[in-house]
Order: sequence, then structure tokens, then C-alpha cells
Amino acid sequence: MTLPVFDAAVIKEEATPQLVFDTVRDALIAHAEGRTSVPPPLHMDFPEVDGDCHVKAGWLTGATDFTVKIATGFYGNPGLGLPANHGLVCVVSARTGQVRAILHDRGLLTAWRTAAVGALITHAMARPGAVTLAVFGTGEQARLQALWLARLRPVNMVLVHGRNSHKAQSLCDELTARGLHAQPASAQQAAAADMIITTTPATVPVLDAVHVREGAHVTGIGTDMPHKNELPPALFQRAQLIATDDHAQCLDHGDFGHAVRAGTAAEDDDIAAGLLLKAPIERQDKAITVADLTGVGALDAALASAVLGQLLP
Amino acid sequence: MTLPVFDAAVIKEEATPQLVFDTVRDALIAHAEGRTSVPPPLHMDFPEVDGDCHVKAGWLTGATDFTVKIATGFYGNPGLGLPANHGLVCVVSARTGQVRAILHDRGLLTAWRTAAVGALITHAMARPGAVTLAVFGTGEQARLQALWLARLRPVNMVLVHGRNSHKAQSLCDELTARGLHAQPASAQQAAAADMIITTTPATVPVLDAVHVREGAHVTGIGTDMPHKNELPPALFQRAQLIATDDHAQCLDHGDFGHAVRAGTAAEDDDIAAGLLLKAPIERQDKAITVADLTGVGALDAALASAVLGQLLP
Repeated sequence: MTLPVFDAAVIKEEATPQLVFDTVRDALIAHAEGRTSVPPPLHMDFPEVDGDCHVKAGWLTGATDFTVKIATGFYGNPGLGLPANHGLVCVVSARTGQVRAILHDRGLLTAWRTAAVGALITHAMARPGAVTLAVFGTGEQARLQALWLARLRPVNMVLVHGRNSHKAQSLCDELTARGLHAQPASAQQAAAADMIITTTPATVPVLDAVHVREGAHVTGIGTDMPHKNELPPALFQRAQLIATDDHAQCLDHGDFGHAVRAGTAAEDDDIAAGLLLKAPIERQDKAITVADLTGVGALDAALASAVLGQLLP
Repeated sequence: MTLPVFDAAVIKEEATPQLVFDTVRDALIAHAEGRTSVPPPLHMDFPEVDGDCHVKAGWLTGATDFTVKIATGFYGNPGLGLPANHGLVCVVSARTGQVRAILHDRGLLTAWRTAAVGALITHAMARPGAVTLAVFGTGEQARLQALWLARLRPVNMVLVHGRNSHKAQSLCDELTARGLHAQPASAQQAAAADMIITTTPATVPVLDAVHVREGAHVTGIGTDMPHKNELPPALFQRAQLIATDDHAQCLDHGDFGHAVRAGTAAEDDDIAAGLLLKAPIERQDKAITVADLTGVGALDAALASAVLGQLLP
């Protein structure tokens, strides 16, 4: 049998926001409850062209399929007229090991599940009355995080902080065109928002913990390798609730790990993010809450399977 | 652009033995000389259906492409009328991170590069006058190792040792049909051959070191995980030359590692197998030589690129 390959355009039609939200929520809960299998990822560097490749596998225990996802980031590509990120997902039968299909999504599903996780966790952890959002970073995830969070709750204002003011303005224009109020902001202004989502590849913290207000919630999305660091360790010291999408990963290469190594958080100070999606959480209005999200392979598996279920019913 | 997918039948036409031998030889030398990049593999287990999945990546430093290979072994498949092994290779540009093609080879290229490495190393390390070969195991690799070695040097007799005597006889019939003299043998008889290649998933040694004769060469192919073990530690103590395809891997999950942990070999007793392919080696006629091969991802990369070079010239 010929191996079916589905392209991004086809995948886009099937991966509705509702499907993505539902699948990602269930999978993150399953992960928090230990019902997933996620081996350590494989990683390669291509320093001469500023490129890297991550391979992540994941399985929801007992599910029909597991997935192996290949994601590349070659950051000189835009200069060649190519997108920086590429990728595909192999959906493999967990019963026979046969590759059922390739979702040649060019990173689309990863972008959407990352957006969905960020939005779900930010929505779950933020105060009910939180209405202003700040995004740090001006890339694809900055855009998606704002749009997907706005699908879950009212967002009155989006403050965009980026090192490049043209990119920040351009993102604001795009968000405004999509019906949100958005404006560029300094790091200090952005850090004072009700909800903060960081989406950068920063290697030093993008905000100062003292600028974060009581009652704020902060979600870190960008830190996914040991040398990256978006959220300052001092923020974790101020936090009354810390959630991690995967305890071991966040300890190893997330912002939570930086805080633990800096002594501003204890190794067991975190709670599994998925558990916060099961029921409304109790949080004090003045509490600062923080989520560190490093990306969980089992979510890719769940989402790819759900999409393939639509494509090959 | 649609992602090209090439099936096993097409790949078979292009991957001639000459192409495989040449590519694998060059790649193993490059690996021995440190001109490859091979990250730790990714591994998943599916114990309920006796299945596993390995993902290996590899790159010949500076080459145009790298590869990510997915290989599954689901050992209950034959009962379902399916082959136990499946797999595909993604060929990815090392310049842009774009997936250039999928070689849906169902494990064919891995089988062939494994056969080629085993044959090349066995041929390089065995005495010039060695003419009898024993294979332990009766599966695909047992068959291929015998056939591919016979492409490189005269093999007067193949002794086949398997736990299942029907399978051993059936392999002998097949080898005979391909022009080799072959007959089933006990483990002790097989261990007395000039050249021995073990190709089993054994977790305890398949032969007794005292039965191996002076002047013999032994190549271990099957041990690729820490719990597997084909060659007895005592054999390494008798060996005057030990080659490993990858020092760190063999130490971690090869037969060499078992010997080192048992104290019958020192951690630096081995030489990189690829170095033995550069020029004829000096070995005493009575010396026992051993090669421990655990599989090197860079060889997959080299072979897949070479085949793709034929398919997409």
C-alpha cells in the first residue's frame, strides 16, 4: 500500500480550533495523570546554518496510534525566502508498528497545539477578572497565543513587546485586523498586564519580576532548551502557584529549572498543568501564578491521531 | 510542493550492493574519524504487543542531507500475517531543514547497511585463509550476512545455528539455493568456525567462548539494547583485537559493554571499526578478533542520501 501523505492545506481544514482545544485538553490531562508515554526527544544542531532538528515521540497509553514528529528550525531560511520552521508527523500504529500516514503539516499542528495549551493554561490559571494580555515576542506564537486565548475569554487589550519595533507594530496591526485591541509596549508596561505570555527564544529573562503585578498570571512558552530562559527566577519566588506541562522536562530545560537551580523554587513546588484543566482552580485574587510549558510529545500524538481520524475516517 | 515518497520496490532497484558497500564503507570510516553527527537515539516500548520503535538520526558532517529513521519491530506481527519490522527514512536538507523525501523502505536500507557493515568488518578482520562461516540466528540478518559476506570473499561452508531446527534447515535450503553450502549445526559446532556472525535478539550469550578456535573472527550484530547479550564476556578476554562501530554505543548497549562491566575487557580496549576498513590490518593467524556492531545512524544518512541521489538526480 502506498503511504498516504497529507499536506498542510488538507490538515488545516480538519484541525478546527474546537478539535484542537478538545484534543489538547484531554491529552494534557492524560499526561498529568501518567497515562502517556513520552521518551526523551532526539536533537541535532547545525550551527553553521543556525539550524536545529528536534524529534519527539509520544503516545497516549492504549491509543491506537503513536507519533514521531520531526521539527526543524533553520533560522537563516527567511533570508532565502523560506520559512524558518518545517516539520512533519508520522502516525504509526501502536498495534503493528506500521506507519499509517505522514501529516506533512510543516509545523502547523505543533504551532496549534502550542497555542491551544498556552491558551488553555493561561485561561485556567488567570483571575476570572483578568482582561489585559501582554505577549513578549512578535513571531507566529505571539500571534497565535493572543488569538487563541481570545477564543476562550474576553481580552480587552493586547500589549506587544518585541525587540524589533517594526515587527511589534506589524503584529499589532494584524491582531487589530482580527478584532483585538493591540499596541506596542515596553517590557515594563507589558510586565504589568493581567496575563503575560512569553514566546521568545530569549537566553536571558525578558521581564523583570518586580514589574509583575499582584494577581497576574504568566505563561512561558519559549524556553525549550537548557540555554534558553524567558522568565526570571525571582518571578517563581513571588508565585503562589507554579504549573509545569512536564515536571522532568521543565526541570531539565524550562524556566522552572532555572528557578530551581537559582534557589527561588523548590524542585517539588510545581503542579502538573493538566490537573488544572480538570476543574476550576482556587486562586487568590492577589496571587501571582506561573506556568512553564516546554511542549509534550503526547499532545502531538493525540492531535495527529485526531486529525488523521478526520482524514481517514 | 508535494513530498515525494519512494517505496521499497523503487529503492530496491537503486540500492545496488556496490552502492551499499561503497557508501557504508566510506560512512563507517567517516564515523571512525569523527566526521559524523549521531545524537542519542529515541526509543519507545509497547510491551503489551511485544513491540518497540527506535528513531535514529545521523549526519555526515558537511553533507547536504541528514536523515531521521523510524524503525519498528512488532514481534507478534507474523501471527497477524504482517512482517515484524517496518520503517521509513526521512531525508532532510541540512541547509534548510526541509524534508526532501520519504524513503518508505520498510526497513530495507537498514537491513542492507547492517548486512554490508557486518560483511565489510568480518572480511577485514578475519584471517585471509578463513573459509567457514557460522551464523547464529535464522532470521533476515542471518541470511543477509551470509550472502553479503560471500560477495566479498569465498565462503566454503555456512553453519547455521538456530533454536528452531525447522527455521535453521529452511535458511540452509535458501542459502544452498543461492549457491552456498549450508547446514544446520549445534552451538558448539558453529562456535568452531573460522568466521562467526551472531544475529539474534538473545539476552544470554549464544556461544561458549571456550569453543571458539584460535584464529577465529566473531562479529556480533544482534545486541543493540542493554538487556541483550550475544557474545560472552570471556570471548573478549581471549580477543587480541576488538572493534566497535561506535565506542560509546557499544559500551552502553553492546556486547563490549557487557565485557567491560564483567571485567574481561578494559574500556579502552576497542578500536573504531571504520579504521580497519582503510587498509589491510595486521593480525596474527592465531589471534581471535571480535567486532561489536550496534548500528550507526550516520550510515543510514549516508545510504539514504546515496539512494535519493539516484532517485532524484
